[in-house]
Amino acid sequence: MTTWEQIAAAKRAQTLSQIPKGWVEPNLIQNMNKDGYVSACGYLDTVLPEHEVSITNLTATELAGKIASREMTSYDVCYAFCHRAALAHQILNCCIEIFFEQALEKARELDSYFAATGKLLGPLHGVPFSLKDQVNLIGLETTIGYISRVGQKSDKMSLLAKVLQDQGAVFFLKTTVPTAMLASETVSSLHGRTLNAINIAFSSGGSSGGEGSLIGAKASPLGVGTDIGGSIRIPAAFQGLYGLRPSHGRIPYMDVTNSYEGQELIPSVIGPLSSSLKDLELFTKLVVDSETWNYDPQVVPVPWRDSSEVTKRKLRIGLMTWDGLVMPHPPVLRALRETCHALTSRGHEIVKWSFPDNEKLVDVGEKVYGADFYAEVEQILEKTGEPISDYMNIARNVSRGKGHSGNALDVNQWWEVSQEIRHLKQKFLKYWKNTENVTSDGKPIDAILCPVWPSAGFHDGKVDFGCENYTVPFNVLDYSCVVFPVTQVNVEIDSVESGHLPSLPDDQKMHGYYEAQDFDKIPVCLQVVCKRLEEEKVLAIASVIESCLAATT
Amino acid sequence: MTTWEQIAAAKRAQTLSQIPKGWVEPNLIQNMNKDGYVSACGYLDTVLPEHEVSITNLTATELAGKIASREMTSYDVCYAFCHRAALAHQILNCCIEIFFEQALEKARELDSYFAATGKLLGPLHGVPFSLKDQVNLIGLETTIGYISRVGQKSDKMSLLAKVLQDQGAVFFLKTTVPTAMLASETVSSLHGRTLNAINIAFSSGGSSGGEGSLIGAKASPLGVGTDIGGSIRIPAAFQGLYGLRPSHGRIPYMDVTNSYEGQELIPSVIGPLSSSLKDLELFTKLVVDSETWNYDPQVVPVPWRDSSEVTKRKLRIGLMTWDGLVMPHPPVLRALRETCHALTSRGHEIVKWSFPDNEKLVDVGEKVYGADFYAEVEQILEKTGEPISDYMNIARNVSRGKGHSGNALDVNQWWEVSQEIRHLKQKFLKYWKNTENVTSDGKPIDAILCPVWPSAGFHDGKVDFGCENYTVPFNVLDYSCVVFPVTQVNVEIDSVESGHLPSLPDDQKMHGYYEAQDFDKIPVCLQVVCKRLEEEKVLAIASVIESCLAATT
Repeated sequence: MTTWEQIAAAKRAQTLSQIPKGWVEPNLIQNMNKDGYVSACGYLDTVLPEHEVSITNLTATELAGKIASREMTSYDVCYAFCHRAALAHQILNCCIEIFFEQALEKARELDSYFAATGKLLGPLHGVPFSLKDQVNLIGLETTIGYISRVGQKSDKMSLLAKVLQDQGAVFFLKTTVPTAMLASETVSSLHGRTLNAINIAFSSGGSSGGEGSLIGAKASPLGVGTDIGGSIRIPAAFQGLYGLRPSHGRIPYMDVTNSYEGQELIPSVIGPLSSSLKDLELFTKLVVDSETWNYDPQVVPVPWRDSSEVTKRKLRIGLMTWDGLVMPHPPVLRALRETCHALTSRGHEIVKWSFPDNEKLVDVGEKVYGADFYAEVEQILEKTGEPISDYMNIARNVSRGKGHSGNALDVNQWWEVSQEIRHLKQKFLKYWKNTENVTSDGKPIDAILCPVWPSAGFHDGKVDFGCENYTVPFNVLDYSCVVFPVTQVNVEIDSVESGHLPSLPDDQKMHGYYEAQDFDKIPVCLQVVCKRLEEEKVLAIASVIESCLAATT
Repeated sequence: MTTWEQIAAAKRAQTLSQIPKGWVEPNLIQNMNKDGYVSACGYLDTVLPEHEVSITNLTATELAGKIASREMTSYDVCYAFCHRAALAHQILNCCIEIFFEQALEKARELDSYFAATGKLLGPLHGVPFSLKDQVNLIGLETTIGYISRVGQKSDKMSLLAKVLQDQGAVFFLKTTVPTAMLASETVSSLHGRTLNAINIAFSSGGSSGGEGSLIGAKASPLGVGTDIGGSIRIPAAFQGLYGLRPSHGRIPYMDVTNSYEGQELIPSVIGPLSSSLKDLELFTKLVVDSETWNYDPQVVPVPWRDSSEVTKRKLRIGLMTWDGLVMPHPPVLRALRETCHALTSRGHEIVKWSFPDNEKLVDVGEKVYGADFYAEVEQILEKTGEPISDYMNIARNVSRGKGHSGNALDVNQWWEVSQEIRHLKQKFLKYWKNTENVTSDGKPIDAILCPVWPSAGFHDGKVDFGCENYTVPFNVLDYSCVVFPVTQVNVEIDSVESGHLPSLPDDQKMHGYYEAQDFDKIPVCLQVVCKRLEEEKVLAIASVIESCLAATT
């Protein structure tokens, strides 16, 4: 009988075997260490050919433009990203399915088509595009971190993948996820740990950590992750990227494999990560314009709406410095201050946001995620005997601490949770509406500005410093969120004491975890949040913030 | 100790006591019988003052126009409807909360306001408006058919009621519902039976039977019901009215009391009933324009969209003559034929609609409604000892017949139901899209035309002829539906044999129930169905059908 360890080892070997021999470099990490690099992204710039680096430095929008103007071929672009991804994977362990050969063939086809017809398939013509493992491609595995799913090839293609491919995207790999996608780090018994592209001592975050790590290493210009508790936003933040958590029903999830597929109270959503804000808009507009509501019943028939008005007027922003539970570390507080300063110095208004029920939002999230006490996960793990993850054990302990019996809820209990969520949503909307009493022009705020995570990240393996306090509430509420980079930890200026006196246990733990030098140069991202189905607006506001930040630095 | 019978009797007496003495007529039904009337609506026309009848014959849109042009006062309008409703209730037993005095006072206020300022509150200024019991008004009871809820006065007002009141609606009563709103007839141990306004030997339908009966008697121009399995559409159809079942999230349900409030897989929705199609649009546009998504998190931020283009071109309509399970009675089949003829003779296209999984749609609906085997209902009934309804016993038997264990589902089983629904929705959308292969211009259909109910109605008390086959699927799918009147049963032309040979037990039962003379003069309505959140479109298509029908008769 084959053990789970053997299956996992074979799968890892198989993933590696998909990398062309010439790109396999067994001593890559040692060399990187020897050269004094902690950043895979920085190190790869030094070992890859200059012309490839100049390609991989471009955004998806720029790449599409250069392909369209015939400055570059899709093939050359694809080659550069495949090469970089091959090396990135050998350092970061961020890929689970690799298919460079098909990708290069596809790129060549697109080049021929363009040469022959003068036509582009769509706005992504020839642009390499990475996919989180969950996204199904015919003939490839969708293991979602489970060893028992190894060898099961998918016979369907996710609707989103079809849409992207129809618009010219070139898929070249799928990226790692933690077991069942239920963690804020990316580790599984199947593939091991996915490291942070900016500092390999840190966690890549999760559950879209493979995407975060890969795109953070500039080994993909644009990709999709999913988010049920922060899984797009956390890896984006940990790698200094942009990420959009759309509302449920804006981007099609149809035929994307998931854990707890029937759980619809806090739905997992799918959205883009990139090193460019423009790329997020490119992606979102393209997908919305594809009118996938004609295929996916969960997609709301809301066409793309022009939100340029918010770029032409004073914005009203609610600032949530902290949630009253876990105080962010000094670099995050500085990022908030700097962003507010950038906004106010361009005439925008900041008001205080202090919703009183943050704890309830976090707690009800945990109730939903742990509604069956992770029985589904355990049943799937049992098929091969692979052990349950640390993260899930932590989650179970937290649930127990909050009174979970350890049994699956019955349907009446589930409906109670549903009502609790609805009442919290109502209260939150009311609080939002009431900000019209504190803004200078009597109108409610346009968006909330807040942390993504209380620290700039956590060290690999230190998942007990997991803290989804700033992401889960917006999953419960189903609001539209954009993560954007602001700064990086600077040991020189972030060593000051915050003066915060923590009282709650989690707050104490997070407070005790901070030493500026431990986080030096780690990127710091923030989050801007609009209401449900306001993707256009939140992207537009993020672009305003980006220009304000650019104008003050 | 007070028994449930005593509480119910006291409540009924209290409802009656709200009718001014001068309007109480203990022999009303006897007189109606003596005069040879089966239709309360027809009879009331003969006993009420002519000038009042001329008012109550007007639609809400017309009433609003006449009040705005000062041809009528809100007070006079309100008086006429209160008077008619008082008599209607004494025949039909359709009201549960009566507050004419406050209504008349409100109407006077609105008249004074208009006289003083020349301004109207909104498009409903001064128009009487009826509410299904579920809708909360401060200081009134919301019993939803439960005796144990008698005496509990509401301390909140439903958001929808606020919106309507702000636009000038004058509430004057609340209407009856069956116990827990879970039946297609309107009967409870609390208030007894609500009769059909067109023929008192028939059921008013349910669960918005109080609204259907009242509006069918022209004792209210416009009102709201709710619909989780057909509860707006069935009473509308049984009384020859128009009714809109909007998609979830279009009309605010916030603070409307409900059974199974946390059940969101097949959500109950709230929408209008009226004797005029224009009134449905008046209502829906007004509510959507109120942007209630700023208050109710379940409302989707989709503004009112112009759908006039569908009134200017050829429509493509999918005709579902029957669902393959229960064949409609000859008058319903004739209504379908006549409507198709009216459409095709004006240049519209009819194609066959024959989705293969209608049975699964009905079955999964029953799984959701009976997920806890009606334990919640039973618990509430037990408080006073009132018996469980016939309808619920039937529902339980059906569930058991289909394998229900009699225990509440656990959350994993619930999630399985959720997935089943999602897959059916996907399949339905695909089937819809594929109609582009059968239409003459290669575009998918605009709407489905189908029955609301296989018969024109059922006799009061004959709930075992309940058959929600044509309504439940669109609750499962969450599509937008308009019910509209087409014809009435005509013993002369509807006595023909349909030639149908029933095989399934329900089909046999329904087939055996038909004798043309038993249904003579009962109205026959049909249903037009558009996709999710297409309220504007389905209303516009209904108006096209209405003009085609008008042009051919």
